[in-house]
Amino acid sequence: MNLKDLVFKTRSYRRFEEAYRIESKTLEEFIELARMSSSGGNRQPLKFLIYTSPEDCEKVFPYLAWAGYLHDWPGPEKGERPSAYIIILGDSSVTEAFGIDHGIAAQSIMLGASEAGLGGCMIQSIKREELRNEIQLPDQYEILLVLALGKPVEKVVIDEIKGNDVKYWRDAGMVHHVPKRNLKDIILKL
Amino acid sequence: MNLKDLVFKTRSYRRFEEAYRIESKTLEEFIELARMSSSGGNRQPLKFLIYTSPEDCEKVFPYLAWAGYLHDWPGPEKGERPSAYIIILGDSSVTEAFGIDHGIAAQSIMLGASEAGLGGCMIQSIKREELRNEIQLPDQYEILLVLALGKPVEKVVIDEIKGNDVKYWRDAGMVHHVPKRNLKDIILKL
Repeated sequence: MNLKDLVFKTRSYRRFEEAYRIESKTLEEFIELARMSSSGGNRQPLKFLIYTSPEDCEKVFPYLAWAGYLHDWPGPEKGERPSAYIIILGDSSVTEAFGIDHGIAAQSIMLGASEAGLGGCMIQSIKREELRNEIQLPDQYEILLVLALGKPVEKVVIDEIKGNDVKYWRDAGMVHHVPKRNLKDIILKL
Repeated sequence: MNLKDLVFKTRSYRRFEEAYRIESKTLEEFIELARMSSSGGNRQPLKFLIYTSPEDCEKVFPYLAWAGYLHDWPGPEKGERPSAYIIILGDSSVTEAFGIDHGIAAQSIMLGASEAGLGGCMIQSIKREELRNEIQLPDQYEILLVLALGKPVEKVVIDEIKGNDVKYWRDAGMVHHVPKRNLKDIILKL
């Protein structure tokens, strides 16, 4: 698949076939992509936690906020929850400044997931202290981002933006609509 | 090309065949990849500036710092400088919090460049105020990242890290060596 098709296919998915299991080895292959991606000053301060078993995934789920614009949807119900998570950590023993390393890494991972027929969502709205306690994370590590992964069961379509309204929404058929700005509006001419 | 090969090929390049010209249309195709990548809360606050002519590229070059670990190398000499730049801006009229959007976008763009046989470098070490003055950038925009692009003329190899020494270096044959941490060392087991 060429990169354009892969990027277009890599939407944010929030509903999954929860029973579908993903092996740790598969996640390690995605993290290998992150490992080989750019890092500010080549410092490579990121660490990765992998969760694949139903029990482990249940531990992570309660600390995540889902789809801020869908006010009457508390997140995926049982049966449609992620089958796996990657938690991206910043290792403060390396640096305190993680910059955009986790953005670069996350994009490599999500593209990898997409190529493997999976999908997911980068989640930044995390109850960080509660999750830290739950997983007994040493102080040295900062929780930067959670990647929720699974076999998507929802349809996501891109709409042309109307005005400045960036809020995604769901239609009656549970299709998830995401308004995107036009290319001509994001390329600035000075 | 599969994603793994593409990611592995997407190294940070700092020496280019400067005479090789890149069309604006090509850069727009890369920005299209960024446009279709994730954005925190789907806010899409990024804007992009494109520089492709030799004159325009000469304007941008003096405000960039190159390869922090190569202390006796001030950056690419004439003839080996980038043929194009994309400046990624944060539009503060959309939000003041750009999060990791520019990391995600930059990775999509650099992978696109790589697929097109080009290469480059994400540069965060920028004389931001001087560059702002040079390009007469309105206050509304924040300079987040400069992507230097071109046809690479240098060889970059990945080495296994020795101890914790992340500093890249150049050998006598001008091959650029980049130490990367091992996969087993970045996947944390709690």
